[in-house]
Amino acid sequence: MGDLGPPTMAHSWEQTAARVQAELKAKIPSEWLLPETLLSAKPRNVLPVFRSCGILTDRELEITEAKDATSVLEQIHSRNWSAKEVTVAFCKRAAIAQQLVNCLMDIDFEGAMRRAKELDEHLAKSGSVVGPLHGLPVSLKDLTDVKGMRIALGMVDFADSSSSSDAVAVQSLRAAGAVVYVKTTMPQTGMALETASNLFGRTLNPFNTSLVSGGSSGGEGALNGCLGAPLGIATDIGGSIRAPAAFNGLYGIRPTSRRFSYRGNAMGFTGQAAILSSIGPVGRSLRDIELILKIWNASEPWLVDPAVMAKLWQPVSVPSKTTIGVMYWDEVVMPHPPMQRTLKDAVEKLKQAGHEVIDFEPYKHKEAWDLAFRQYYPNGGKFVKDALTRTGEPTIPAVAKFLARAKELDCHEQNMCNQQQRQYQTEYLEHWNATASRTSTGKPVDAILTPSFASASYPHDHLPWWGYLSQWNLLDYPAIILPVGKVEPSDVPDTSYQPANDLDRENHELYDPELFAGAPLSLQLVGRSMFEEQLLATAMAVDQAINRRT
Amino acid sequence: MGDLGPPTMAHSWEQTAARVQAELKAKIPSEWLLPETLLSAKPRNVLPVFRSCGILTDRELEITEAKDATSVLEQIHSRNWSAKEVTVAFCKRAAIAQQLVNCLMDIDFEGAMRRAKELDEHLAKSGSVVGPLHGLPVSLKDLTDVKGMRIALGMVDFADSSSSSDAVAVQSLRAAGAVVYVKTTMPQTGMALETASNLFGRTLNPFNTSLVSGGSSGGEGALNGCLGAPLGIATDIGGSIRAPAAFNGLYGIRPTSRRFSYRGNAMGFTGQAAILSSIGPVGRSLRDIELILKIWNASEPWLVDPAVMAKLWQPVSVPSKTTIGVMYWDEVVMPHPPMQRTLKDAVEKLKQAGHEVIDFEPYKHKEAWDLAFRQYYPNGGKFVKDALTRTGEPTIPAVAKFLARAKELDCHEQNMCNQQQRQYQTEYLEHWNATASRTSTGKPVDAILTPSFASASYPHDHLPWWGYLSQWNLLDYPAIILPVGKVEPSDVPDTSYQPANDLDRENHELYDPELFAGAPLSLQLVGRSMFEEQLLATAMAVDQAINRRT
Repeated sequence: MGDLGPPTMAHSWEQTAARVQAELKAKIPSEWLLPETLLSAKPRNVLPVFRSCGILTDRELEITEAKDATSVLEQIHSRNWSAKEVTVAFCKRAAIAQQLVNCLMDIDFEGAMRRAKELDEHLAKSGSVVGPLHGLPVSLKDLTDVKGMRIALGMVDFADSSSSSDAVAVQSLRAAGAVVYVKTTMPQTGMALETASNLFGRTLNPFNTSLVSGGSSGGEGALNGCLGAPLGIATDIGGSIRAPAAFNGLYGIRPTSRRFSYRGNAMGFTGQAAILSSIGPVGRSLRDIELILKIWNASEPWLVDPAVMAKLWQPVSVPSKTTIGVMYWDEVVMPHPPMQRTLKDAVEKLKQAGHEVIDFEPYKHKEAWDLAFRQYYPNGGKFVKDALTRTGEPTIPAVAKFLARAKELDCHEQNMCNQQQRQYQTEYLEHWNATASRTSTGKPVDAILTPSFASASYPHDHLPWWGYLSQWNLLDYPAIILPVGKVEPSDVPDTSYQPANDLDRENHELYDPELFAGAPLSLQLVGRSMFEEQLLATAMAVDQAINRRT
Repeated sequence: MGDLGPPTMAHSWEQTAARVQAELKAKIPSEWLLPETLLSAKPRNVLPVFRSCGILTDRELEITEAKDATSVLEQIHSRNWSAKEVTVAFCKRAAIAQQLVNCLMDIDFEGAMRRAKELDEHLAKSGSVVGPLHGLPVSLKDLTDVKGMRIALGMVDFADSSSSSDAVAVQSLRAAGAVVYVKTTMPQTGMALETASNLFGRTLNPFNTSLVSGGSSGGEGALNGCLGAPLGIATDIGGSIRAPAAFNGLYGIRPTSRRFSYRGNAMGFTGQAAILSSIGPVGRSLRDIELILKIWNASEPWLVDPAVMAKLWQPVSVPSKTTIGVMYWDEVVMPHPPMQRTLKDAVEKLKQAGHEVIDFEPYKHKEAWDLAFRQYYPNGGKFVKDALTRTGEPTIPAVAKFLARAKELDCHEQNMCNQQQRQYQTEYLEHWNATASRTSTGKPVDAILTPSFASASYPHDHLPWWGYLSQWNLLDYPAIILPVGKVEPSDVPDTSYQPANDLDRENHELYDPELFAGAPLSLQLVGRSMFEEQLLATAMAVDQAINRRT
C-alpha cells in the first residue's frame, strides 16, 4: 500500500498489524460471522446484506433500522425494548458491518452487554432512567480515549496502546446512560479524507465499495451508514466529521472548535493553536445531534477543560422563515453534476417553503486552503513522521503527498499565519454581514448552504480538494451535513464544462455516473462561529423544506 | 534615560520627541497652566494641588470628585449637570494632571466639548439620552485606536501615527454616549509595569511621585488616580490594567482575553496566540466597571470581531455569603508588610461579614512565570526591536532587561510552550476544583483573594516580580483590583524575615515605609475563566465587607 519504498522493519509492522487484526476478529462471536462465500462475492452496495444474511432477527432489524436514536431511546425508556436487546442488536449489526466494510478498530461487546443489563436492572428497580441516553449504544472513534480500549491513531506504532481514562465527552455520554461497545477506524495519521491504514486496512463505503467512506472519521461514517450504530461521535479538524457524514448519508455537525470538550482525544492539542479540532456527533437526525450537544453542554465541560467556552445552551425555536445564502461553488473546484442538481433542487424547495434565498459569493477560498494547509503541520508533521519512522510502516497514498508537502514554519512564519488567519476571519465576517444589503429583512443571511464536497465520495487513493470542508475549520464556523439523496443514472457528465484550473480539471475528469452509482449526496449548512443553537434551528427548517421531514 | 549607549540618530529621535511634547503642551489652554513656581516645587503627593491651584471652580471640583461615573451620569441624565460642564471640568482636571504627573499623550479638548454640546442639545430637544454613557468623558490608552488621534505605542518610530478609525470597544462607548477627550501614556514597547518612554518622558504616581504609576496603562492609572477622568479604558497582557489600578487606588478588571473586543488595539494580535491581551475599564467603583462590560457585551462585538466569545451577559445577584480562597503569597516573592497587613485585615472583615474563607495554596507560580515569559515574545521581540532600531532611540531601563532576555523560539518550542500552558491550565483548574473538599458548601471557592502585587507601587527604573499579575494572564482568569487603603508609617519592615530566594530578597530589601509613604494598597480577586459576571458579583460582596461600601 505504501509508496516510500521497502520498509526497513517490514516483518515487524506487518506482523503487528496481522496480530492486531486477528485479535479484533476474535472478538466477534462465531455465530455472527458471515460465510466466506458471501464475503468473497459481496455486492458493491452491501446494505441489502444486513437483511439477507439471516443473522439479524426481525426484531433486531426493527431496532437497528429505527428512525433515529431518539426513537430508540423512546422505546427503551417506555420499556418496549430493553437496553440489553438494543445493545445486542447493534453489536450484531456492527459485527456484520465490520466484516463487510472494515469499520471497527476495537470491540467490547461483553462490556456493553454487561452495562446494558445493569441499566435494565436499574430501570426495573428504580423506575427511572439514569439519564437521557439510558441504554443507547454509541460508537467512538479510534483517537477518542475510552478507558481500557485500544487507541492507535491508525498507526502501527501505537497498535498496543490503550486508554487509562475516558475523554471528557465520553464521561458525559456514559453519565447520561450511553453504552460503549465499539471504536471505529481512522486513517493512518488522521490527516486524510479516506480511511485506510497499514494497521487495520481499508474502510469501504457501504453504499458503493468502490468509493471511500470518508475520513478521518471514516469508521464512524461506514458503521453509521450501515445502521450499525444509532449514533456515533467523530472529530473534525479539516472535514473529518463532515466527509464521513456526507459520504454515508448521515447528519453530522462540526461545532465551533472550543464549544465542546476535546480533552482526552489524542493529537487534539499538539500545540498548534491556529486550527483546533472539534468533536461532534454523526447520526440519523438533527434532533439526535441536538440531544448530544445539549448533554455535553449541560455537563459544564469548562469546569474540567480550560479550552472550552463557558457558554450555556440557548434554546432557539425552529424558524418558519429563514434567509439562506447559497454558494453554488467555491470558485476553485466545480462540484459534480449530481451535487449541482441537488443544490439547485434544494433552493427550489426552500423557496417553495417560503424561505428567502440569495446568492452568497465565495471569498478567497483558494487562499484560505493555502493558509489552512500551512497551519495543519506547522512543525512539518514531526509527530506522525516520527511514529511512522519508528516502525518502518510505509505512508499510505492518501497521506503521503500531504505529508511530503508539509513544511516546517519558523516562529515568525507561524505567527504571520496566525495573523493572516485572524485577518481573513475578520474579512469573512464583514463579507457575511454585507449580505444584509441584499435581504428583504435587512439582516445578514442566517446560514450559508453549500455543496458538502465537490463529489459524492470518491475512489480509493484519490487525493481530492478539501476546500469545501477545511474552509470552515479555518474560519471556525460550525457546519452541518444534511443528506439529500443519491447519485442517479440520470446525473450525466457535463461535457461542455471548461475547467477553471488544474484542480477543477482533475475533479471534472473524475466524474462517471457508473463509478459513483448510489453514492449518497449531501449538502452543507454553515452558521456563525459559536452559534450552534441558531445553526441547528435553521438546519431543522431547511431539512423540513428539502427532505419534507417533520 | 537609555542604557544602550549613545543612540545612532540622537538628534533625530530627540528632536521628534521634543516636537511631539511641544505639540501636546500647546493643546492645553494657557489659562489652565500651572505656574512654574508650583511645578518646580511640587509636593511628593500632588493630589492636594487640584484644590489649591485655584484653576478648578467649586462646581468643577464637585463634578470631578464625584463618587463614580455612575453618579456623574445620574447628574447629567437628570439635567443637574450639563455634559458640557462635566466635560470642561474633566478636561481642566486632566490638563492639571498632565502638568503634575505627565499622563497624557494626546488631547482633543475641542472635539470633546463640541460633542458634549451636541449631546446637551440632543437631550434638550428629544428629552432622552443617546445611551447609558450620555455625556461621560472617557480616557483611552495610547495603543487604542481613536479616529484622528495619535497612536504611538510609546515609541518614537510611531510618533506621528494616527488612527483612521475607532477600535470596536471605542465605537461601543461612543454609541452609548461617551465623550473622548484624551489619550494616555504607556511605556516604550508596552512590556513594562512602569510608564516611561523617550517620546513622552515618565509618568509619575500622583500619590507619591517617587513611585511609578504602573504600566503599561500607567497614564490611565495616574490620570484616574488624579480624578482627571471619571473612568478609563486600559489593556492587560501581563498586568497592564491591574498594576496601574493597584498603584493608584482604583478599581479595575482584566477580563478573560476573548470576552470583549480587542480589535483596533495596536499590537493586540501579533500572531502570538498563547497569551492574548484583554481590554477592560479602570475607575472608582465596581458598578462602573460592570456598566462598561455590559455595554460592550450588549453591542454584540462577536459580529465584527472573530476573536470575541459570543457569550451573552448573564446577570448574577450579589451573594450574601461567598466562599473565598486566600493566597497570602505565591511562594516566590513575599509581599511587603503593608500588603500582608491589608490582606489579613480583609480576611478578618470577610469572616465578620459572614463569608467563608479558606487557605488557597499557590500551584507552581514560578514555573508559570517562566512559561509566560517565554511566550510573550516568541519571536524575540522582533517588532519592537525593529521599531527601536529604526529611530535609534535607546531602550528604557524598565524594558531593556526584559527585551534582552527575550529568546526567539522555533516552531516546535512554541508549540511545546502552548501544550505546557494548556496542561498547566488543566492542572490549575483541578487544583481550584479540589478546594471543594475543604469548604462547608462542598463546592469549590467562588474566587481567590491575593495580593495585587508584592509591593504598593515601586521606585522608578526598578524591575519588579510580575508573577502576582502575569499568573492570571497565563491561566486566562479574570481578575479584579480592589483598593483597600494606603501604606502607613506603622507598616514597619519585618527585619526577621528570611528571603526564600534572590527575587524575594530583592523585594524584601526594597521596602522602606518612608519611600512608600501614602502609596495606595490594593488586593486582587481572581475568578474562573470566562465568568466575569460571577466574579463581579463576588467582588461586590467582598468590597462591601472589606471597604464597608454599600
